[in-house]
Amino acid sequence: MRTAIIAGEGRLPAALAAGMAEPPLVAAMDGSAPEGLTVDLRFRVERLVPFLRALERDGVGQVIFAGAVTRPRLDPALLDEATASLLPRLMAAMAAGDDATLRVVIELFEESGFSVVGVEAIAPALLPGAGVLAGSVSPHDEADAARAAAIVAALGAVDVGQGAVVAQGLCLAVEALPGTDAMLAEVAGIGALRPDPARGRGLFYKAAKPGQDRRIDLPTIGPETLRGVAAAGLGGVAFEAGSVICLDLPEMVRLAGGLGLFLWARG
Amino acid sequence: MRTAIIAGEGRLPAALAAGMAEPPLVAAMDGSAPEGLTVDLRFRVERLVPFLRALERDGVGQVIFAGAVTRPRLDPALLDEATASLLPRLMAAMAAGDDATLRVVIELFEESGFSVVGVEAIAPALLPGAGVLAGSVSPHDEADAARAAAIVAALGAVDVGQGAVVAQGLCLAVEALPGTDAMLAEVAGIGALRPDPARGRGLFYKAAKPGQDRRIDLPTIGPETLRGVAAAGLGGVAFEAGSVICLDLPEMVRLAGGLGLFLWARG
Repeated sequence: MRTAIIAGEGRLPAALAAGMAEPPLVAAMDGSAPEGLTVDLRFRVERLVPFLRALERDGVGQVIFAGAVTRPRLDPALLDEATASLLPRLMAAMAAGDDATLRVVIELFEESGFSVVGVEAIAPALLPGAGVLAGSVSPHDEADAARAAAIVAALGAVDVGQGAVVAQGLCLAVEALPGTDAMLAEVAGIGALRPDPARGRGLFYKAAKPGQDRRIDLPTIGPETLRGVAAAGLGGVAFEAGSVICLDLPEMVRLAGGLGLFLWARG
Repeated sequence: MRTAIIAGEGRLPAALAAGMAEPPLVAAMDGSAPEGLTVDLRFRVERLVPFLRALERDGVGQVIFAGAVTRPRLDPALLDEATASLLPRLMAAMAAGDDATLRVVIELFEESGFSVVGVEAIAPALLPGAGVLAGSVSPHDEADAARAAAIVAALGAVDVGQGAVVAQGLCLAVEALPGTDAMLAEVAGIGALRPDPARGRGLFYKAAKPGQDRRIDLPTIGPETLRGVAAAGLGGVAFEAGSVICLDLPEMVRLAGGLGLFLWARG
């Protein structure tokens, strides 16, 4: 039984493929380009049902979703009849947010007989367990991480984002659709509002949404995140242990050391 | 019994003073400049207790807090003994967020014998009740406002912000320390992530925090907000009826008309 990676943007699909014993089938949405992987099968949401049948024909029994996907604009002219009948369900889910959309997508794959698995099942080493992985964490950082965790949990409960920046108890930024890099760039430009760095530089915190389906959309950080955190003048990164994908952890640890940042999987 | 306005930045203190039968005493924190008002009394947080005594000497019995205040950096050298004894309480509150800080500041004024009142008591016309004040609201806008209200309630519960931008169910931005104008500027630059404007332009939503002390820090919008919303490419502004201060409502209504925006006090 073959595994298919439904690959979005970024490096996660390749990191997953590298950890698999048998080469996966790589499928990607039209317009989406996974880094470092050859795409075997292209698909469009408007032709979802024919795509599911093609996966079946290729012997795929198990699928994993990996990498960021921009919500597509749908072209009604491209719809086939079977996919058209699913559209009301998909559109309703898209209107209700990313989580709802992903839940329905998983349902549609499962109803077609595929089993949908998560990163834990394929490459558990990408999800570090509790521990300080680089630098050191002060009591200030612990307090900021606790406040950030409460904020991110509240945001996650309304399906907004998975990250926030907190310094000395102040919430400097919260992640929404534009994502982590945009948020960190905003913090870099925050200027005079920034609290006195002598009393704690603050941190970026990332966590899964409470109760989220762990087979899909687990938060991801990587070397770029650390560069953004350094440029934003923060002291480090804290994340929920066991629930955040670290792309190229050895490089992240090396980079955190070089940039004077802590990297903390908070248990 | 005289009323003192503890005036922060912006136009709200002057708008309040204009609505009062007797001229108030205007007090402002060092470094803070209320627009269009002469400051009678300057104060610093490090010398809070002497300031409270000065208010008392001037016959003040009732105070109202109005206008944005940047959280001050405290200079220990300036502390008097009485204020120093309050400092642990103030510092603990400041570490716990804006709401906690404001609650403690109100307590300190009340413990000194002042009554602390809100905008409702002084100038209720600044808080419009339910109704569409300009333009028209579509079912898409109603859905986006409902989603934004849920997001802002979740954020408010963790004392983060009072606003969010939602378009077609997607949360484009959430307000944190940098405030509304910074958030709208960010949305203006969001580019390709923006959902198809043909299916609803999205809105900026503003509301009080659930259970917040209504005597302090009620959210405020004004003509500048509408200009920012137009520049961000959104369709309009929705806000919680009776809980959001509108600075210069006639100008806001005129401006919304000119910019093709709706302005909606959502009941």
